[in-house]
Amino acid sequence: MYATFSALKKYGYAELSIQRIASELNFSKSTLYHHFSDKDDLLLSFFNFLLDELEQFCKSSSTNEPKKELLDFVDVLLDEGITQKEQSAKGEILAAYIELRSQAIHDTKYRERITRTDKRFVKQIAVIIDAGIDKGVFQPVEPEETAEFILAILNGILMQGSTRKRAPFQQLRQNLIEYIQTELFVESATRS
Amino acid sequence: MYATFSALKKYGYAELSIQRIASELNFSKSTLYHHFSDKDDLLLSFFNFLLDELEQFCKSSSTNEPKKELLDFVDVLLDEGITQKEQSAKGEILAAYIELRSQAIHDTKYRERITRTDKRFVKQIAVIIDAGIDKGVFQPVEPEETAEFILAILNGILMQGSTRKRAPFQQLRQNLIEYIQTELFVESATRS
Repeated sequence: MYATFSALKKYGYAELSIQRIASELNFSKSTLYHHFSDKDDLLLSFFNFLLDELEQFCKSSSTNEPKKELLDFVDVLLDEGITQKEQSAKGEILAAYIELRSQAIHDTKYRERITRTDKRFVKQIAVIIDAGIDKGVFQPVEPEETAEFILAILNGILMQGSTRKRAPFQQLRQNLIEYIQTELFVESATRS
Repeated sequence: MYATFSALKKYGYAELSIQRIASELNFSKSTLYHHFSDKDDLLLSFFNFLLDELEQFCKSSSTNEPKKELLDFVDVLLDEGITQKEQSAKGEILAAYIELRSQAIHDTKYRERITRTDKRFVKQIAVIIDAGIDKGVFQPVEPEETAEFILAILNGILMQGSTRKRAPFQQLRQNLIEYIQTELFVESATRS
């Protein structure tokens, strides 16, 4: 999986080959063909691995503090840069996520997997929002609908950050945090 | 360009070849090689063509009505479905945009071009916001910053819509419109 990640970073999906992944490991191609039927099979396994890790990574430890939990969820994904200039380790993983996600446009298997991951993230965010409403610290919004919107914004920020020069990554992160505070948090809701 | 679009829809970027594009036209490969040095050259030309069209398409006729202009900009991109289930002609164009945009993760030429298009869209949205502030119908936000955030949300909605099963496309569009009304429009700004 690490060799696939490394080759993907270097060459991109379209230019990737079993040969190039095998080279990362100093393996022969036939060793890889022993485990995966073809490039698509290997890449889909990697996509599954990547999303499992991402889901694990974003799991919140229930802190009974919905405000903190929601901001933490955003920060797990956006705390480091994912711009072409400053590509952190996490930024590289998120860029691989964006690149492989776009395979879902043509590949049903990718589409089914990403649909499942999106659903889990939406549920996770919605549970936090629901808890916040129960505790009276969040506005009474529709949890799932708001969760979907927050996820779409997160994806948009990650997509722009990984595909554009000088994307204002930190500013967009700040905009999302302000949106959450204004739209959801009870104290921030009364504005002049 | 149309043949490239058609082949891209059928096969996706990674599986695309000069042969497959030539087949769409009943041309020989050599005819295409006469005009383009390779697949990447042809696809980049198509990406340039696509973004030119998209920019043209989103150009607003200055109506002196900033509110209407801003909502029109959103609707030009989001009025039709771009979910895997209901793929309109515009939806197919936008899915091609998302797919080719992800090439920018590895290809500087794509990155430079998409950076230029993003900048133009940000400027176009910022000009509308600026006019709205001048006329007193928009809150005094920072125009360019807000424009960047709106563009990121638009991209996130398009990205989710083209890669996921049953993405709540129309609901996300409504969320974005509500965000714009709440955050920017002067009447909607005083909430209980």
